Amino acid sequence: MVVDVLRATTTMTAALAAGAEGVVPCLEVETAREVAARMRAAGRPVLLGGERGGVRIEGFDLGNSPAECTPQRVAGRTLVFTTTNGTRALEACQAADRVLLAAFVNREAVVQALQSAAHVHVVCAGTQGRITREDTLLAGALVDALEEQSVGNDRAIGSDEARLAQGAWRDVVARCGGMPSPSALARELADSQGGRNVRALGLEADLQDAAALDRYRLVPELDRASGVIRAQVRPTVGR
Amino acid sequence: MVVDVLRATTTMTAALAAGAEGVVPCLEVETAREVAARMRAAGRPVLLGGERGGVRIEGFDLGNSPAECTPQRVAGRTLVFTTTNGTRALEACQAADRVLLAAFVNREAVVQALQSAAHVHVVCAGTQGRITREDTLLAGALVDALEEQSVGNDRAIGSDEARLAQGAWRDVVARCGGMPSPSALARELADSQGGRNVRALGLEADLQDAAALDRYRLVPELDRASGVIRAQVRPTVGR
Repeated sequence: MVVDVLRATTTMTAALAAGAEGVVPCLEVETAREVAARMRAAGRPVLLGGERGGVRIEGFDLGNSPAECTPQRVAGRTLVFTTTNGTRALEACQAADRVLLAAFVNREAVVQALQSAAHVHVVCAGTQGRITREDTLLAGALVDALEEQSVGNDRAIGSDEARLAQGAWRDVVARCGGMPSPSALARELADSQGGRNVRALGLEADLQDAAALDRYRLVPELDRASGVIRAQVRPTVGR
Repeated sequence: MVVDVLRATTTMTAALAAGAEGVVPCLEVETAREVAARMRAAGRPVLLGGERGGVRIEGFDLGNSPAECTPQRVAGRTLVFTTTNGTRALEACQAADRVLLAAFVNREAVVQALQSAAHVHVVCAGTQGRITREDTLLAGALVDALEEQSVGNDRAIGSDEARLAQGAWRDVVARCGGMPSPSALARELADSQGGRNVRALGLEADLQDAAALDRYRLVPELDRASGVIRAQVRPTVGR
């Protein structure tokens, strides 16, 4: 599972929820342009989206803000997408059987999709190779929910990192007196490296959108054969 | 500050508390043998200590267990010491002004020594380059105490890693209903990579010793000029 709360996995989930046909993740800007040109030449409706340094890339249709993904703009279109950290995290999952994308906006749907998964790896995008709080908190929220779900089966938390992330998330829950409200969660996200980066760009609204816990009942999944991320077809991840 | 709760910084603190003259950290087993031989030739009372794979090195006087550091064995002697992860973490602190060693057994003393330090970096040894829970929990306990100490001055938590470690520690405190007792802390340490390693070697007693919160009012400090770790002379770290 890939996590990039601020903002790639949040934005891709929002795009699919708004009716985008699929998202094609690309590592490089030039690759994204080429892929989009090829698809356009084949007559497919395409949008170019993504960022470098947090900012929309020149000539691209969209940046990396969930709010840009309105049905008017994205419905029925394929989004060719490149971001600094999120698309790299996807690359790191080459060995996984299945690759799902998680954000706070689809947390509950992801947990349900993992109901019967025997092994779950959570890959946090971070920033420039460093651990970031916003992604680790979501990882902890997922670990916590999966542990609860695992009562009675033999699934266990397999790493110290996962256990630490869970502790950090539980501390947020304790301080909020329960599952955080979107506004409380937005404050937590603001106090993270990704949050500081987004605020420095004047994109506070993206924090609010990223903190809209369980807004979407949708799990994006990478289809390996085509390289396209689509709203999950199979409802749960099997053993 | 260097942290290797299981067990290097715990054991070195115990050795100094038991009256050891100093601890000479060495990266390699062969270096440790040479240093010890040289010091013995100069007529100095020396003990060789340390582990590889968690186990006492052949021909060494001591392994890496705090309980071995009795006054009868170590008082007045210099300990030449090499461990798998702890001595490497010390190496990572070359650029620091001062290098202190922290464990749960001297947590409070370390916090007091840092009263007026402007910049504090906590370097966790981990295991084979991976993050471990036992070291991260102590780092979190230190961050939490330093934040409390910083009310009214301009010191702030500077990284997401530090904030996450603090959250994981606070979750332990919440689940224990306050600062954990030594036995509760030992259970937490048992649920960590270092804890599992130590238990696999049949060294459960080391977990209890490592969990003896605030047992020693002593801060080991590396003297750069001599390469020797000694009980701190200067009472606090200045700006």
